[in-house]
Amino acid sequence: MTAPIAIIMGSQSDWDTMRHAAETLDALGVAAETRIVSAHRTPDRLFAFAKGAKAAGYKVIIAGAGGAAHLPGMAAALTELPVFGVPVESKTLKGLDSLYSIVQMPAGVPVGTLAIGKAGAINAALLAAAVLALSDPALSGRLAAWRKAQTDAVAERPEDKA
Amino acid sequence: MTAPIAIIMGSQSDWDTMRHAAETLDALGVAAETRIVSAHRTPDRLFAFAKGAKAAGYKVIIAGAGGAAHLPGMAAALTELPVFGVPVESKTLKGLDSLYSIVQMPAGVPVGTLAIGKAGAINAALLAAAVLALSDPALSGRLAAWRKAQTDAVAERPEDKA
Amino acid sequence: MTAPIAIIMGSQSDWDTMRHAAETLDALGVAAETRIVSAHRTPDRLFAFAKGAKAAGYKVIIAGAGGAAHLPGMAAALTELPVFGVPVESKTLKGLDSLYSIVQMPAGVPVGTLAIGKAGAINAALLAAAVLALSDPALSGRLAAWRKAQTDAVAERPEDKA
Amino acid sequence: MTAPIAIIMGSQSDWDTMRHAAETLDALGVAAETRIVSAHRTPDRLFAFAKGAKAAGYKVIIAGAGGAAHLPGMAAALTELPVFGVPVESKTLKGLDSLYSIVQMPAGVPVGTLAIGKAGAINAALLAAAVLALSDPALSGRLAAWRKAQTDAVAERPEDKA
Amino acid sequence: MTAPIAIIMGSQSDWDTMRHAAETLDALGVAAETRIVSAHRTPDRLFAFAKGAKAAGYKVIIAGAGGAAHLPGMAAALTELPVFGVPVESKTLKGLDSLYSIVQMPAGVPVGTLAIGKAGAINAALLAAAVLALSDPALSGRLAAWRKAQTDAVAERPEDKA
Amino acid sequence: MTAPIAIIMGSQSDWDTMRHAAETLDALGVAAETRIVSAHRTPDRLFAFAKGAKAAGYKVIIAGAGGAAHLPGMAAALTELPVFGVPVESKTLKGLDSLYSIVQMPAGVPVGTLAIGKAGAINAALLAAAVLALSDPALSGRLAAWRKAQTDAVAERPEDKA
Amino acid sequence: MTAPIAIIMGSQSDWDTMRHAAETLDALGVAAETRIVSAHRTPDRLFAFAKGAKAAGYKVIIAGAGGAAHLPGMAAALTELPVFGVPVESKTLKGLDSLYSIVQMPAGVPVGTLAIGKAGAINAALLAAAVLALSDPALSGRLAAWRKAQTDAVAERPEDKA
Amino acid sequence: MTAPIAIIMGSQSDWDTMRHAAETLDALGVAAETRIVSAHRTPDRLFAFAKGAKAAGYKVIIAGAGGAAHLPGMAAALTELPVFGVPVESKTLKGLDSLYSIVQMPAGVPVGTLAIGKAGAINAALLAAAVLALSDPALSGRLAAWRKAQTDAVAERPEDKA
Repeated sequence: MTAPIAIIMGSQSDWDTMRHAAETLDALGVAAETRIVSAHRTPDRLFAFAKGAKAAGYKVIIAGAGGAAHLPGMAAALTELPVFGVPVESKTLKGLDSLYSIVQMPAGVPVGTLAIGKAGAINAALLAAAVLALSDPALSGRLAAWRKAQTDAVAERPEDKA
Repeated sequence: MTAPIAIIMGSQSDWDTMRHAAETLDALGVAAETRIVSAHRTPDRLFAFAKGAKAAGYKVIIAGAGGAAHLPGMAAALTELPVFGVPVESKTLKGLDSLYSIVQMPAGVPVGTLAIGKAGAINAALLAAAVLALSDPALSGRLAAWRKAQTDAVAERPEDKA
Repeated sequence: MTAPIAIIMGSQSDWDTMRHAAETLDALGVAAETRIVSAHRTPDRLFAFAKGAKAAGYKVIIAGAGGAAHLPGMAAALTELPVFGVPVESKTLKGLDSLYSIVQMPAGVPVGTLAIGKAGAINAALLAAAVLALSDPALSGRLAAWRKAQTDAVAERPEDKA
Repeated sequence: MTAPIAIIMGSQSDWDTMRHAAETLDALGVAAETRIVSAHRTPDRLFAFAKGAKAAGYKVIIAGAGGAAHLPGMAAALTELPVFGVPVESKTLKGLDSLYSIVQMPAGVPVGTLAIGKAGAINAALLAAAVLALSDPALSGRLAAWRKAQTDAVAERPEDKA
Repeated sequence: MTAPIAIIMGSQSDWDTMRHAAETLDALGVAAETRIVSAHRTPDRLFAFAKGAKAAGYKVIIAGAGGAAHLPGMAAALTELPVFGVPVESKTLKGLDSLYSIVQMPAGVPVGTLAIGKAGAINAALLAAAVLALSDPALSGRLAAWRKAQTDAVAERPEDKA
Repeated sequence: MTAPIAIIMGSQSDWDTMRHAAETLDALGVAAETRIVSAHRTPDRLFAFAKGAKAAGYKVIIAGAGGAAHLPGMAAALTELPVFGVPVESKTLKGLDSLYSIVQMPAGVPVGTLAIGKAGAINAALLAAAVLALSDPALSGRLAAWRKAQTDAVAERPEDKA
Repeated sequence: MTAPIAIIMGSQSDWDTMRHAAETLDALGVAAETRIVSAHRTPDRLFAFAKGAKAAGYKVIIAGAGGAAHLPGMAAALTELPVFGVPVESKTLKGLDSLYSIVQMPAGVPVGTLAIGKAGAINAALLAAAVLALSDPALSGRLAAWRKAQTDAVAERPEDKA
Repeated sequence: MTAPIAIIMGSQSDWDTMRHAAETLDALGVAAETRIVSAHRTPDRLFAFAKGAKAAGYKVIIAGAGGAAHLPGMAAALTELPVFGVPVESKTLKGLDSLYSIVQMPAGVPVGTLAIGKAGAINAALLAAAVLALSDPALSGRLAAWRKAQTDAVAERPEDKA
């Protein structure tokens, strides 16, 4: 059976960011496939993957990319599945180029965009899980537990680390 | 029966933007409730609404706000439902402040952020519909038809309008 | 007796910045409570704290947060006490997201915003002390002495350090 | 008797923005003096005003300026009173220059900065009133009433205006 | 015979900008085809067009798009022909999003990017003509004449227009 | 025989970036000359070089510069050859100043601009090669092979490097 | 006798801004020549003018330009005279591109840069006059009078204009 | 005899940048005084220094500051001498705040602004020297020699350093 979530990224170097999406889904007990799909270097792979994603059984696509980050938007153009985009931090413009390229999609083709970098990757996983949880009570329970644990882990007072 | 989608916004002035979300959902045959919920001026209403949203039967929350746009993020902090945020264009910083305030959420509490302004409002509706369509084949069919019509409406050549 | 100043921050990692507020108040002989209050991970704690801050005897709230920094603005929405906000430097956008999220509050709910990072934390303490000094002549004297010492410490000529 | 609040601004053209501070204080029953004090064109007036502000009986200074907006910071350098700064929207950089010039003060001399433009002017007044209300129960009551009225004025649902 | 230049754009609304490319090529006696090719709304058309562009006889592709402007980069991913990109001015971010999305391409897939808006459209045409002129002496002569006329048209002194 | 491509740069320090253009052309079997030509420190050299570039036999000029990067634009003002510009990353503004100075050329004098830094240098070489390949079938074949190798080198799945 | 100041600008459209420099110098009794010198469209004129400016008797050059504003920096590269640059407001990037292109000159070739737009043009004139006044006591007196008049013209209180 | 140039800076930490101005003037044989003058921490020193600068015999003031960099503009408000400003690189906003605070002066009080950081410090010295050279032929000769040496030092070809 296909995993419900596909995590795709533009290059190997994006994995340092996107692994946080994979690890978060794993912690929530949600299966995910991870793929390198470069919009610019492997456009045919992108077309084949995105056009076939729904038939393959995926429910949600998480796409991370940096710079002129076309992967999330092009995936969204080629599938009706919800696509969540993660702007990977770029070297010179600190991910601002990635953010603009992903979030400023024209009317008609949405990409739900998360924060730049690691926080965005974690949150893409949480958002995808929240979508799946709408029709999966067990996952809904695990997600609620995850959030409660997160709340409980916040200390009352800052600790001096020195 | 509660509508599956709630569209909330920080003030009356956001309606010029957010009505495009409402109209898009209407075109797709998806029921939606529209509410003004100001994180800053009506924090109690925000808490009551967001904490009760899941029990009330909503599936997805679309939240639009401008400037120091805290509404989408605070709603996401108070519900496990997927929250999609629309940065409303602000007067002086053109929505850049709205965008940063919505998209740069910390790890743990996701907001799927769309483009600044009208395009973002339309796309929030489309993304919410895509989420609902995962378990609603009829809606999935309407969404596919909507997208096909959009594709068919693109002319081959630009028309001189002069 | 409650301390007159509460220093709250969104996470443990903000303490490296916000400790400078605590140390400055300490140097001025002003008591302060320090708390971690996450708008996103502990919204109930935020509501309880901010709604009860005035009754608890606080006079001024200093709130530091980074990224989509909602803590200062939400605290200001929930109390009539003066709130001073410190944008904590974020990783990718260097605190520009924090600054916009804190300073661009809508009309009706003010947050007096200081500089990004350590300078802002120190200045939030000085500004809070200046507010308390309006009705505390002894503190006013200590504040004046602090400022005079600061002025006296400025050398006439730059020193070569090589 | 001197008014407790001084509203100063760099030029006549700032009045379109700063009048909103004056009107808000008037609505709260707080007396205020309004003055044009240009840091660049009338530096002597600035020095005389700011150095004498405490002795003159002012409690809080609200300073609005645009572009290379030095007025709030220089006033803060010359008085121990709390200074709240309002970045006036500039023509080319939309007030971003004003914002940076006001908020990025070095450690030691604080300016509590509000939002760019009209919202910032209103909020500077509200913040100054909140400071005065710490030792003025009647004003505290009026401020609470003002905020309650603001909350009550938020409609439940957006109204179509067409 | 196919025209040597294809001018493609993401939507009808880009024509107000891109017509300046068409008019400039026309003035230089270079034939061009103009097409609407939306990366997001007509991805199949994009694939068919760009993959077939070389075989169809085009020499250079000029692509204009705004917002999350993926058209130039995706065209460049699908053809070996030189691609020149024109960032069309967007409503909220003034074309800065378009610029970043077009120019910040990853190593391996180049887009020669011109200025935002009308100047960029004119210059894309001039740059395409300069490329064709490398093997077309007659065009080289017309281009030289065009540039000389441009130089000659610069007046010596500014004229008062009042 | 003159090499078909000239790679010019504003200073020795740009070589760390621009060497990637030279290496890429070398890998494609395209000869290139590399020169330091500073618009600001050696304006006479710039004039002599750019005015004589066409007669010297060059086909394309690649120009890299940082900060107030005038070299690409001034070269383009002095030659009819296609000029491709590479914004070199600057220390304080991260190449944003370089990018704006190169890409925002006025109508009439085009510079095809690539990404900031190393990726831009590589892509300037690929774009120049694509231009030459229009009339050089052997180069066209090598370029196609280079692109195919690039596509083939993209792995299917990210590799954990830990 | 040559006027001591040359005001050059990149195009006729810059005159709306640069006329304020001319008018200010006129008010101060300082003669100035105004010229259109386009770095990009008339590079030979630029070279001839700037190289000959000192011998022609000019003392200071004021140069205004917009977008990729190379005129001030190239003039500074070609003369030892002091050059003051005025960033003319551009359409899309509001003069930010002009500012960066003018102010971020590399070490070795200075341009004293003024504010974007009209204020910058007026101030370039005042700064040039201040330079000339160093060796012209009569001008020094007129400049002092001009500044005193400016100070005296600042009203004490803002006037309601409604 | 007073040195003709005063180099002032807002704090000891600015000396790492401003020493490059001092060293450049030294290399040109121009005497300079260096002083720490903080607009915010030592406003009286600023007033005394700037008001007395002309009478003290200075000809040009070079002022460096970072963040909300008020020193150059306030010095310019208090003296008729030419003031050149150097934006010192700040920690979070990389000197962009410094640049805006210095360059965006209102009409009437000019500051000739140089590049952010070391290049700006060197260029402030060169620009000040160019001003003095207008009435000092010997300095003019040394400046010309300095520039010629700079031109001669530019190598023809980049050297591999590996």
